[in-house]
Amino acid sequence: MKLATIRLESRTSAVRVDEERAVEVEDAPELGALLARPDWRARAEAASGPSHDRSSLDFAPLVPRPDKIVCVGLNYRNHILETGRELPQFPTLFAKFPSALVGARDDIVLSEGVAEFDWEAELAIVIGRPVRNIGEDEAVSAIAGYSVLNDVTARDWQRRTLQWLQGKTFEHSTPLGPWLVTTDEMDGTSGAIGCSVNGQRMQDADVAELVFGPAALVSYISSVVTLLPGDVIATGTPGGVGAARTPPVFLSDGDVVTTTIEGVGECANTCRRR
Amino acid sequence: MKLATIRLESRTSAVRVDEERAVEVEDAPELGALLARPDWRARAEAASGPSHDRSSLDFAPLVPRPDKIVCVGLNYRNHILETGRELPQFPTLFAKFPSALVGARDDIVLSEGVAEFDWEAELAIVIGRPVRNIGEDEAVSAIAGYSVLNDVTARDWQRRTLQWLQGKTFEHSTPLGPWLVTTDEMDGTSGAIGCSVNGQRMQDADVAELVFGPAALVSYISSVVTLLPGDVIATGTPGGVGAARTPPVFLSDGDVVTTTIEGVGECANTCRRR
Repeated sequence: MKLATIRLESRTSAVRVDEERAVEVEDAPELGALLARPDWRARAEAASGPSHDRSSLDFAPLVPRPDKIVCVGLNYRNHILETGRELPQFPTLFAKFPSALVGARDDIVLSEGVAEFDWEAELAIVIGRPVRNIGEDEAVSAIAGYSVLNDVTARDWQRRTLQWLQGKTFEHSTPLGPWLVTTDEMDGTSGAIGCSVNGQRMQDADVAELVFGPAALVSYISSVVTLLPGDVIATGTPGGVGAARTPPVFLSDGDVVTTTIEGVGECANTCRRR
Repeated sequence: MKLATIRLESRTSAVRVDEERAVEVEDAPELGALLARPDWRARAEAASGPSHDRSSLDFAPLVPRPDKIVCVGLNYRNHILETGRELPQFPTLFAKFPSALVGARDDIVLSEGVAEFDWEAELAIVIGRPVRNIGEDEAVSAIAGYSVLNDVTARDWQRRTLQWLQGKTFEHSTPLGPWLVTTDEMDGTSGAIGCSVNGQRMQDADVAELVFGPAALVSYISSVVTLLPGDVIATGTPGGVGAARTPPVFLSDGDVVTTTIEGVGECANTCRRR
């Protein structure tokens, strides 16, 4: 089952995305509100609200206002090697604020004052129920499903200080969507992941290469905080980012960034200087 | 004027804290909801709801669910020197999730699996109106006021990886309160700041020693994101943290942490192993 948040005339709605139509889920103005209900799966399966042609959907960020966005750094073997580091004992975690998010077809805003916007294709985990201090077995059942995220990064700001937040949370820079694929269709342990810029393939890997997989990440993060329905975990990016190329390549006005995960979906976003 | 969020029988309320009584502000279930109204100052000054004896107040976290908590690292000259670093060109920013917050008299929860909880007394800035890309002059007027925060840190987890988030956001670890002091009474540019543990003075400095003061921080952060009413900026801690002592000292079950800022107020929190 695929679930999304779409924009309508003067509101948004959570929808179940079927083969040809997207059906509104009753009493669920966005996916986060739906996932907050313990019976979200049954509600989504039974949804019979107004429906929309799948080709006409205006995707909002998958979860527009997650309580938490936890990002993982250095989690693909080849990306760790390209940055000159050793395989880690613990996951590297940092945060992103919800205002960084954009929808799967929205513009990526290149904020003024930043010279080096870079791409980072990532598998996103979306949490389906509240959990704290759980082991990896239980963690699997806490995941609602998977989506596509691009952790677009202002490299010059990321490198200004030891902490990455300021380079990671520029407003309207992070595509998330177009939909959530539930865990019965995608288990997050394999699938090709890639990023293209203007049609040129820049990242090409498989989520099977994750050092810390979805269950390990959910378990680890739950030892620090209670994960809530709708929380998003961005699992890290593989090799091939612009900053690691010779010479380095960064995003410019008009560039189209396409982020794809096999079995999940695709975000396609145009960069716009503001 | 002092403003706070207090817990009542089955709800919370924003209050104006006067000399002897705290007066509920109408239609404001917590301070964040009050600050979201452009006329928050007039509403608070005119408040005439039910009142409570000031000595009986049960303080919730000052803003229970801020959209953003932005923390600043390495921002006092003497703390920078004790960690062996040079004065920075840019502020070091990291995040904390709202579930880390506790009220001014609540327990600090020492989560299991953490050996080295440490104190960090900090001046907190609370934002009073939405701002993006503003200069320092305008930033001053975007600040609603100041409060007291202790950025209690799990040093062992902070040091596990390059990014500090996991050591900074343990659930129910960060006192914030008891109240906001509005900018007409406190301008955030001077005032003694300190932290005592079981009555022993551990940190003793003045917010005048901040490398990046409140206006500079609000301006800088607003170049990355839109700051919203109720957002909290924790401005960094002075020297004297437990990890920098010889031998190091960390918090134990039953320890009482008292965090004080002259002209603002005091948090007094007991540590509890859970």
